[in-house]
Amino acid sequence: MVRSWATSTETLGVDLHIDLGGAGGLRAGLMGALRDAVRSGRLTPGTRLPSSRTLAADLGVARNTVADAYAELVAEGWLTARQGSGTRVARRAEARQDRSHTRRLPTRRTPTYNLLAGSPDLAAFPRAEWLKAARRALTAAPHEAFGLGDPRGRIELRTALADYLARARGVYASPERIVVCSGFVHGLMLMSRALRARRVREVAVEAYGLDFHWKVLTEAGLRTAALPLDELGTRTRELGERRGVGAVLLTPAHQFPIGLPLLPDRRAAAVDWARTTGGLILEDDYDGEFRYDRQPVGALQGLDPEHVVYFGTVSKSLAPGLRLGWMVLPEHLVGEVAEGKGAADWSCGALDQLTLAEFISSGAYDRHVRGMRLHYRRRRDQLVTALAEHAPHLHVSGVAAGLHVLLELPPGTERSVVQGATWQGLALEGLSRYHHPAAREPRRDALVIGYGTPSDSEWAGALEALMRVLP
Amino acid sequence: MVRSWATSTETLGVDLHIDLGGAGGLRAGLMGALRDAVRSGRLTPGTRLPSSRTLAADLGVARNTVADAYAELVAEGWLTARQGSGTRVARRAEARQDRSHTRRLPTRRTPTYNLLAGSPDLAAFPRAEWLKAARRALTAAPHEAFGLGDPRGRIELRTALADYLARARGVYASPERIVVCSGFVHGLMLMSRALRARRVREVAVEAYGLDFHWKVLTEAGLRTAALPLDELGTRTRELGERRGVGAVLLTPAHQFPIGLPLLPDRRAAAVDWARTTGGLILEDDYDGEFRYDRQPVGALQGLDPEHVVYFGTVSKSLAPGLRLGWMVLPEHLVGEVAEGKGAADWSCGALDQLTLAEFISSGAYDRHVRGMRLHYRRRRDQLVTALAEHAPHLHVSGVAAGLHVLLELPPGTERSVVQGATWQGLALEGLSRYHHPAAREPRRDALVIGYGTPSDSEWAGALEALMRVLP
Repeated sequence: MVRSWATSTETLGVDLHIDLGGAGGLRAGLMGALRDAVRSGRLTPGTRLPSSRTLAADLGVARNTVADAYAELVAEGWLTARQGSGTRVARRAEARQDRSHTRRLPTRRTPTYNLLAGSPDLAAFPRAEWLKAARRALTAAPHEAFGLGDPRGRIELRTALADYLARARGVYASPERIVVCSGFVHGLMLMSRALRARRVREVAVEAYGLDFHWKVLTEAGLRTAALPLDELGTRTRELGERRGVGAVLLTPAHQFPIGLPLLPDRRAAAVDWARTTGGLILEDDYDGEFRYDRQPVGALQGLDPEHVVYFGTVSKSLAPGLRLGWMVLPEHLVGEVAEGKGAADWSCGALDQLTLAEFISSGAYDRHVRGMRLHYRRRRDQLVTALAEHAPHLHVSGVAAGLHVLLELPPGTERSVVQGATWQGLALEGLSRYHHPAAREPRRDALVIGYGTPSDSEWAGALEALMRVLP
Repeated sequence: MVRSWATSTETLGVDLHIDLGGAGGLRAGLMGALRDAVRSGRLTPGTRLPSSRTLAADLGVARNTVADAYAELVAEGWLTARQGSGTRVARRAEARQDRSHTRRLPTRRTPTYNLLAGSPDLAAFPRAEWLKAARRALTAAPHEAFGLGDPRGRIELRTALADYLARARGVYASPERIVVCSGFVHGLMLMSRALRARRVREVAVEAYGLDFHWKVLTEAGLRTAALPLDELGTRTRELGERRGVGAVLLTPAHQFPIGLPLLPDRRAAAVDWARTTGGLILEDDYDGEFRYDRQPVGALQGLDPEHVVYFGTVSKSLAPGLRLGWMVLPEHLVGEVAEGKGAADWSCGALDQLTLAEFISSGAYDRHVRGMRLHYRRRRDQLVTALAEHAPHLHVSGVAAGLHVLLELPPGTERSVVQGATWQGLALEGLSRYHHPAAREPRRDALVIGYGTPSDSEWAGALEALMRVLP
């Protein structure tokens, strides 16, 4: 029996002629057809295969058959499987690029369930409120708002942010020292160039973090050095022992992805180091708004605005698709960073900036953040309850804030748990992929479980899928 | 008599105590006070002074008194005066940076009248239609539109653009080969990196153009070589004689700022060169929509989509503040350029992209462009008529298209005409500042007169001011 399976061009773009009745059964037939397609070049390196569920439905076979075929082809080196990126035709040695690509396309082809950290619930974007703000902003805007304008960003937005950040995050801000940017990576890139221009050569980072942040630094010509981490958080006191380090990148409100806040004495140690050496602290306040059980931890920046660069975005609080973020800079850096941004034509759209300004000053932003805080707290509670019930032997931490928790796993099990999740269509990441290559700590087996991404209708299913894959 | 003059912090930020009754009269008193303020550091380098008109009104003196004082302080090196940037406290040796900054802030502090080339009539932005499109787009958007998405840009926008560009500009486009960017400079920057990655070392440019475009190329590590220009336009045939040139940057629809379209045989020569050598043509179609007396000249890209990179933006047709542009790429470059853009976090806001997609596909964009074409043609006619009447001895050219014309001046007069305009509060630029440093042609004295920028209420005054400064 020969059956032809045709997928949409978006997912595959080639017809596979699969002998489903040959020797070796369905699985072998499918594997043979996939190998042929790769060999003949019809499936090119990097091509993403449909999820095992989709393909199984197309072919009318059991999902496990497809999942098993994929798993064997991965083992044989024909395919690769990465969490969040699905199954792809293998390509050679582009792992890092591939990863950053994945990060940027988390929703292009959604796995069945997504528990990756880093994205908010996109279904909760306040469309009606945003449109209202857009209407008011667009009606009130002066004509010059449609021109190129100040490379720091619209004054309306910088004014609204200065007020909001002082009030909500304890940031010492004034419109003059704020530079609007497209997001954290954009801000970090601008900052990296300014650091290089000041002959900084090395930046300390936390033992765990995001590889594409480190990459921004290294591509600007900076080395990264990992600070040690203990059970209380990042040991900033060790900055004093790192000669040649000119800046340090920290997530003080909620260490990513470990989940601890930076303790007061460690904050003070970082500031002392910066003052003594003239170093800079880069404060990534990526989810500072979301703290559930007590008052938010204020920004480190307030301690010493001339030695801290504060970074924030709407990517967690509203939506990453807006591409809006901000830096609050020491006075001596504002001109240089704004000029670097302006020369690169890297303004953000004026209308979105005006809309966000209106959204903040009308109080809609506070209301939205409050609502989302309740929403995410409910999810966090449900997640913690489910874990306590189904996996009481596993320790969960980092629950006080943010959109993810850390779940410790028995040593040596992380990889198989993550792989199991992938086969089941559950996107999930282990702690090990956040480990800085130069960090001295032994790797820990753990899951980083993001609970922000699923929509309400997907949430229960995602939780169930998670419980199924836990050891 | 001592009178105190206080300006708003926006323009100056310091009080000047001016002895208006001292020896030497008003002008000397003002000059002394300004010198004091600079010496004492109260007026810092780069600070912009109010226009002579504003200051004269503040002080209750004749405008010429202030204009003369400024002129003398410029001559003495205390101040600098640049067209479009007004009068500033002198700073040392930052001319190029200063210039690019100026370009980005053309409307921050508007001179009385602005006839600089390069900006559309911001007062004509179609606010109501744009809001309608935003509402429809935001209502219809799938949840995933609020996520990070494809680094090439939203598929809705790329689809709408592919259709529009084929229809309106003769571009061979498909959504797959379009990459949305923030504007021409952003696109050129991405392209420059791709060229460097392919070991291109030199890019040919036109004899006249924008220095900050050349700067993008040189900062990416590319040299620029100027192609000669004759009375028929850029001599693309000379590309064959430039060994080592790997790409050429052209404005085929309307040479900027000379104003000629690239003739068919010169287009063919460029394409032949690209095919023979494997070179790339970078086509800057910056104002292709605005052609008044006959059919628009189609894009060069249609001749050979695999050897031409087409660049367009909404900066002339709608507003530069939107920061939206696009590249249509040869197939072999799409992946590389999209990856470079994505890795730099340089997405454009999804909501503006969705809104523009809706604006185009609803027909509102065509209607707006048609309306603006009539609007600008009327202005062009009024300008040409006024020139024929008041300065019949001066030759005007480049009138068939775009938002500016070229007005030839008697040899040796350009500088004084431009300076005269500046003192009168009329922002205006001479042709010489568009001359490539390596171009072999002798410099020509001419004015580049932009008629897009003034609002309707300013237009008559701008025309009058222009007539006053012509020789």
